[in-house]
Amino acid sequence: MARIGILGATGYTGVELVLALEGHPEAELVFLSSEASAGMRLQQVFPRLSGCTKIRNLTLRTAADCQDASVDVVFSCLPHGASAEACSAFLAGGAKVIDLSADFRLRDPSDYPRWYGKPHPLPAKLSEAVYCIPELHRQDLAGASLVANPGCYPTSILLPLVPLARAGGLGAGLVIADSKSGVSGAGRKPSLATAFCETNESFSAYKVGRKHQHLGEMLQELGRARTGGVPLVFSPHLVPMERGILSTLYIPLAASWTGARVRDLLAETFAGEPFVQVLAGEDGLPSTSHVAHSNRCHIGVAEQPEQDIVVVVSVIDNLVKGASGQALQNWNALFGYPETLGLAP
Amino acid sequence: MARIGILGATGYTGVELVLALEGHPEAELVFLSSEASAGMRLQQVFPRLSGCTKIRNLTLRTAADCQDASVDVVFSCLPHGASAEACSAFLAGGAKVIDLSADFRLRDPSDYPRWYGKPHPLPAKLSEAVYCIPELHRQDLAGASLVANPGCYPTSILLPLVPLARAGGLGAGLVIADSKSGVSGAGRKPSLATAFCETNESFSAYKVGRKHQHLGEMLQELGRARTGGVPLVFSPHLVPMERGILSTLYIPLAASWTGARVRDLLAETFAGEPFVQVLAGEDGLPSTSHVAHSNRCHIGVAEQPEQDIVVVVSVIDNLVKGASGQALQNWNALFGYPETLGLAP
Amino acid sequence: MARIGILGATGYTGVELVLALEGHPEAELVFLSSEASAGMRLQQVFPRLSGCTKIRNLTLRTAADCQDASVDVVFSCLPHGASAEACSAFLAGGAKVIDLSADFRLRDPSDYPRWYGKPHPLPAKLSEAVYCIPELHRQDLAGASLVANPGCYPTSILLPLVPLARAGGLGAGLVIADSKSGVSGAGRKPSLATAFCETNESFSAYKVGRKHQHLGEMLQELGRARTGGVPLVFSPHLVPMERGILSTLYIPLAASWTGARVRDLLAETFAGEPFVQVLAGEDGLPSTSHVAHSNRCHIGVAEQPEQDIVVVVSVIDNLVKGASGQALQNWNALFGYPETLGLAP
Amino acid sequence: MARIGILGATGYTGVELVLALEGHPEAELVFLSSEASAGMRLQQVFPRLSGCTKIRNLTLRTAADCQDASVDVVFSCLPHGASAEACSAFLAGGAKVIDLSADFRLRDPSDYPRWYGKPHPLPAKLSEAVYCIPELHRQDLAGASLVANPGCYPTSILLPLVPLARAGGLGAGLVIADSKSGVSGAGRKPSLATAFCETNESFSAYKVGRKHQHLGEMLQELGRARTGGVPLVFSPHLVPMERGILSTLYIPLAASWTGARVRDLLAETFAGEPFVQVLAGEDGLPSTSHVAHSNRCHIGVAEQPEQDIVVVVSVIDNLVKGASGQALQNWNALFGYPETLGLAP
Repeated sequence: MARIGILGATGYTGVELVLALEGHPEAELVFLSSEASAGMRLQQVFPRLSGCTKIRNLTLRTAADCQDASVDVVFSCLPHGASAEACSAFLAGGAKVIDLSADFRLRDPSDYPRWYGKPHPLPAKLSEAVYCIPELHRQDLAGASLVANPGCYPTSILLPLVPLARAGGLGAGLVIADSKSGVSGAGRKPSLATAFCETNESFSAYKVGRKHQHLGEMLQELGRARTGGVPLVFSPHLVPMERGILSTLYIPLAASWTGARVRDLLAETFAGEPFVQVLAGEDGLPSTSHVAHSNRCHIGVAEQPEQDIVVVVSVIDNLVKGASGQALQNWNALFGYPETLGLAP
Repeated sequence: MARIGILGATGYTGVELVLALEGHPEAELVFLSSEASAGMRLQQVFPRLSGCTKIRNLTLRTAADCQDASVDVVFSCLPHGASAEACSAFLAGGAKVIDLSADFRLRDPSDYPRWYGKPHPLPAKLSEAVYCIPELHRQDLAGASLVANPGCYPTSILLPLVPLARAGGLGAGLVIADSKSGVSGAGRKPSLATAFCETNESFSAYKVGRKHQHLGEMLQELGRARTGGVPLVFSPHLVPMERGILSTLYIPLAASWTGARVRDLLAETFAGEPFVQVLAGEDGLPSTSHVAHSNRCHIGVAEQPEQDIVVVVSVIDNLVKGASGQALQNWNALFGYPETLGLAP
Repeated sequence: MARIGILGATGYTGVELVLALEGHPEAELVFLSSEASAGMRLQQVFPRLSGCTKIRNLTLRTAADCQDASVDVVFSCLPHGASAEACSAFLAGGAKVIDLSADFRLRDPSDYPRWYGKPHPLPAKLSEAVYCIPELHRQDLAGASLVANPGCYPTSILLPLVPLARAGGLGAGLVIADSKSGVSGAGRKPSLATAFCETNESFSAYKVGRKHQHLGEMLQELGRARTGGVPLVFSPHLVPMERGILSTLYIPLAASWTGARVRDLLAETFAGEPFVQVLAGEDGLPSTSHVAHSNRCHIGVAEQPEQDIVVVVSVIDNLVKGASGQALQNWNALFGYPETLGLAP
Repeated sequence: MARIGILGATGYTGVELVLALEGHPEAELVFLSSEASAGMRLQQVFPRLSGCTKIRNLTLRTAADCQDASVDVVFSCLPHGASAEACSAFLAGGAKVIDLSADFRLRDPSDYPRWYGKPHPLPAKLSEAVYCIPELHRQDLAGASLVANPGCYPTSILLPLVPLARAGGLGAGLVIADSKSGVSGAGRKPSLATAFCETNESFSAYKVGRKHQHLGEMLQELGRARTGGVPLVFSPHLVPMERGILSTLYIPLAASWTGARVRDLLAETFAGEPFVQVLAGEDGLPSTSHVAHSNRCHIGVAEQPEQDIVVVVSVIDNLVKGASGQALQNWNALFGYPETLGLAP
């Protein structure tokens, strides 16, 4: 059994993580933090957790109050900016840390201010962190103490794009990622933009092109996958649903590459992966509902015979493969457990 | 007062048209057809029409039973394939026809079989039809008897793209139109794909790239706007909402063109138009809810300074500007009424 | 033309009122107030109003800044507590006031503290106010300067219940009103309870029985309809939709009354009313979508032959007949216009 | 390991059952039937099952083709009318049967025609069946071969009502059950009534009072709980959400009973039950989202000090506790496994 603490347990990713850990045979929950609800029990804040036995005796405490706890691993669901320092204390105490915030995702210290608009709180720690989508980077985990859990949009986009970039299948032009996300991606803090009457029966675009902060980690990882990097345009949209991301990728093909070859490459790359499925056939296009509440990513490839591009469509559950499920998968990989442990089919 | 008949009044576009005509001071409804509900009154099929006074005394009849009616204009909301012949009889009787189906949209007789998979029922009539988005083609209406009302997706895409193509602002590469539509676009016939439990909390892609039948009319109109045509990739998606289309357009720029110049061009083009608004400023991106239940199209332009493209986002209500509202606007233009007559703000 | 001001124009009821007044031939808008958005124009806050011509030249001002305006009628969409004093100044200036808040609904000065938990700000004005659902109380409007526009839930419940109480059809036992409302009833201020991810795919009960503040005005009006009053239990619920209220009423019948007689009574009572429809037949049960965006109330009556009760189901749009539409109808009645003026079918 | 077959695996309850059995350590799936999709694999019909390992090698067959299979237990998710005969063959072969249809719920052979409008296909088998909500009737399971799994609405209503009836807490008057259900309760067959555009943003009542077929089993079970039976009015409503039932019960109290005593009784009755929670305190009212995707029932009790009634609100997930989860719980109880086995927290 591993002793586990969760920082920021009352956000949507925190709750999702508690649900997943409930079914994990090696997880013993030791603390849950919440600044806003300290003193309450988590199942009072979220009645739908009332069947979870592992949190029965835990009272929410502030992050500061949890720092003396003896744990093997800490999952941080704190907001970026606040997460880095909270994680640092636990690293110093010898715990492994899996940070779901953006604080340790950008390796180059100058990148953080560019995308997040403020100085990094702990730039010296950036070199220790391992950015890890397990299907793409699990070999980097060896010996790691600090895992930077990737963003939701980047997970949906990098999973199909990195193998293609590594294999030389990407042509020279712009890659366009047109992504659509459910509302839970915006977090649990009330705002007019995520109010029911503003969101229901409404579909909108925001930060289209080169503005969204997730572009930073995507450019970084594509730069590692192909020398010279990959020019990427990324346009997020808000869908009137709770969870799910669908990314439609318009990808220029390198000479001698076809849509069919892209599908074959992806199918081979992910052949042994329990969580990634490449759909067979021309008509196989995924829906977000196919992966809701699961840690899976489904990828469809639509050939465009008359054009030098391929259209790839990927879906994930933003709260699971895009956040807490992938964090748990990373923990499994880090500790040598089967990666599927605790993760629903 | 103009005497009006509606063919196919019990679909979603038919109902929307009845609602709009209720507020039109020149409209007298003479007949409503419905194969499935003949013998009933429309307000029995749709209780929400029960406040409409113009349909109080009308009983739904089959299209065949309506053909002797003396009317000034017929709106056909019949499915493609069935619409052409039904319209033809009324044309022969001297009525003006506004066809909301796809039957008269493609000028070249060989295009229809390519996109709709069967021979055109009345190819000889194609040359008489005028394809008309009023803001782009209203001068073509002079003397017309048969108006082909454009498709919903094409309306959202052509409104910003045609002026740009005409002005020489489009570069050489592919234009990508990533469109998202509410479920009413699929019509009122029950199917598993549009059932609540399959659609709610689900976002999906379909017919991505070069497959959707609306591509035909878009290529045709872009070919009229720029010699040599415009290479277009079009990917429709289904959004869990009733109404609304948002199209995100990735447009390569011609030399010396910038995003700001595109915005200026569009703002000038539509300056006097009551139904098209070009949003000012870099952060102006529209939502489908901004145009729900209205005949307006809102267009936002997001400059991409580091790239040779511009991202344009347009929204319409697929049932109004994308179908019945535009049909009514076309009728207004055809009969010399103010184009806004009967159309809600 | 009447000169009109709207206090609290940036809430959901304010916007709905502006939309309705756009189509009203006698309405000239003179001012719009908003504490939060003073200095902006209303169509900037709500892009969907961008087609409204009557607000083009109006800048939002604080309520205090509007008090010198010369107007014929003021609609107050301010929150209860704040509304009374703001209205009072305009009354003193000679304007008619239609108050959509709860401030003037309870005649007995001791009722307000009981239901709203604080002293009434202007108890002396209570006797001047006329509580008016036009179909039930329009004769009370004669000579009135201050109209208390009824609450949304009470409108849906009193419309069928008051005629029955007046006619002696109510038996001795408890009347149960089980009501269900869309989320817009909670207003536009962001809160966790009305956030998309908390509301979507969730149905909940709140303040069941004898707790909701709307009970006060219902008991008052039922007390006027039957000597001794009517014992009422009222349970509101929150539905994952934007707009609409459906109330299911379980009504004990007086001796010699049957469900069929109830239906006949209601049908006769509302026979000449343009906005109230009593559905014919045993299977006529309404949906909220039948009245969305309209000022109508639909009422279905389900006979229960084996029991001494009748079940009555009524639906309204909470923002229209339950708020702004009824306010406009009240204004029409007060000024002697046709009551349907400006109100969509 | 128990060998299991599922009849009618491609409906919503069938899929839910497969998902639950995937996590059940004693379940080996032997066959899945589907008339409409025979020849396909279940994960092709439902891509979201693609992570389920137990169905990897199973091809859907017709029910007739499955009858020779050697299994320990059969779950029937067939429609009522069709289910009885299909179950009968497996009973004859020695398997235990858990029937999720209504075919074996009504003990008195004359009840079935009354509520389902046709003769029972196998009236002689009715006396063998055990109607079982485990928390209320698990002692009846001893030695049973055929379990009638209760309906969704009845589960939500009987769980609080039966203990109260048994304890003598019900007064003499009518009990009113005002229930609200998500759309999945209507099944997966496409129909206009469950189409997205008809259901979204719409709330409606249907079969109110004494008409819904589930009333039969409720009256039967209440008749077993109190001599003379309990007069019940039941009004179902359709909520624009996928899953969940909330029932609001208006219950007349017997002399000397209060709301607080009702809450205490229910809390004691269900004290040791893992799946039923009685909320503490006056303000504890449940939402359907609290039990979504779980087998739990949450019950809130709202005291009404001024009246001789209590209002009880209960919630379940109609597809889990209201169907497949309860079926699995019944199987667990029947086979002597812990009742929570395979059921998510």
